[in-house]
Amino acid sequence: MTLNLDGLPLPASTRQQFDFLVTAHRLTSVARVNRLTDGSRAESSAEHSWHLALMALVLAADHAAGIDLGRVLTMLVIHDLVEVEVGDVPIYDEQRRVDIVALEHAAAARLFGRLPAAEVDLLALWTEFEDARTDDARFARAVDRLQPLLMHCASDGAAWAERRITVGQERRLMAMIADFWPSLGPVADALIADAHRRGLLAD
Amino acid sequence: MTLNLDGLPLPASTRQQFDFLVTAHRLTSVARVNRLTDGSRAESSAEHSWHLALMALVLAADHAAGIDLGRVLTMLVIHDLVEVEVGDVPIYDEQRRVDIVALEHAAAARLFGRLPAAEVDLLALWTEFEDARTDDARFARAVDRLQPLLMHCASDGAAWAERRITVGQERRLMAMIADFWPSLGPVADALIADAHRRGLLAD
Repeated sequence: MTLNLDGLPLPASTRQQFDFLVTAHRLTSVARVNRLTDGSRAESSAEHSWHLALMALVLAADHAAGIDLGRVLTMLVIHDLVEVEVGDVPIYDEQRRVDIVALEHAAAARLFGRLPAAEVDLLALWTEFEDARTDDARFARAVDRLQPLLMHCASDGAAWAERRITVGQERRLMAMIADFWPSLGPVADALIADAHRRGLLAD
Repeated sequence: MTLNLDGLPLPASTRQQFDFLVTAHRLTSVARVNRLTDGSRAESSAEHSWHLALMALVLAADHAAGIDLGRVLTMLVIHDLVEVEVGDVPIYDEQRRVDIVALEHAAAARLFGRLPAAEVDLLALWTEFEDARTDDARFARAVDRLQPLLMHCASDGAAWAERRITVGQERRLMAMIADFWPSLGPVADALIADAHRRGLLAD
């Protein structure tokens, strides 16, 4: 990034917003475990975030009528931004997932702290998603778990095979979907059972 | 995509939603003119859509207080989905942009027609964005033009150089930003003037 925002004849708040947006764009360079369905490369965290927003929009009809979709979309758009500083830690690396929590919170404070006062308090929404106590956050969290499961199934479980993930391990990690949002539990179970039947998840 | 949704013991509406979501994920394979800031590859249309949503969230504070951000985010998340069928046509290919409009409308009807009744009428929102008559749509459209401009500036104008884009051409194409949303016009002008001064846009 070589854009020198100091040189631009723009209000300070606009320069801060652009600085944040250009930094945030680095989420396109954070590679996840999932592959694209054409197999060409890893899905980026930016693409994952976009697909989650779409998934929330589509599944809300049957699963979360009445939640505040605008808040859910906002959480999903920003939830992985800390990865531009700390990287993506796959859920399969369970110890590292625990270790990184404090780093992620510090990164969120730094990152969102670059912004001038906003229409929406993004740090508060990021924290609400992490805390998973409100309905909006819990639906968003369930979708965040369900999307990789769906896309593993749609890409022949390539990432599962690489890591030799077993059906028991996947069931345990995906149990959070039902915890977060009960009506999506059976949906996750059906995907896992089908993947097991197809031999994509080991015994 | 080898996921056979017919085999899954799920309600028909869930299978339709998953079919739509897996198809929609192909937007990650649609390459745009812009490069990532690390230069490694082209930005995908999925990444562009995510970054637009973030940009709308951040710029709304100063530029569009009072608009319905949930509707704007929804439009931005879905606005490029037709590209999974018809591909991305850069704004620099002006004749092709005109030629493709009818194809895009047909693709939108087919694509969104796969979904069961939704919480949000996505085809209606997609059409509202295209028609650019409401404030929500016009702010979204302005952001859709401004994001590539910002990212061209942040990636040293690599895509401009490749196409030998002149400052006059860029000014003419970006005039729509001020048409759609007047307060963003001077912001676009400042970015273009700075890019010209840095030699990223030809005379």
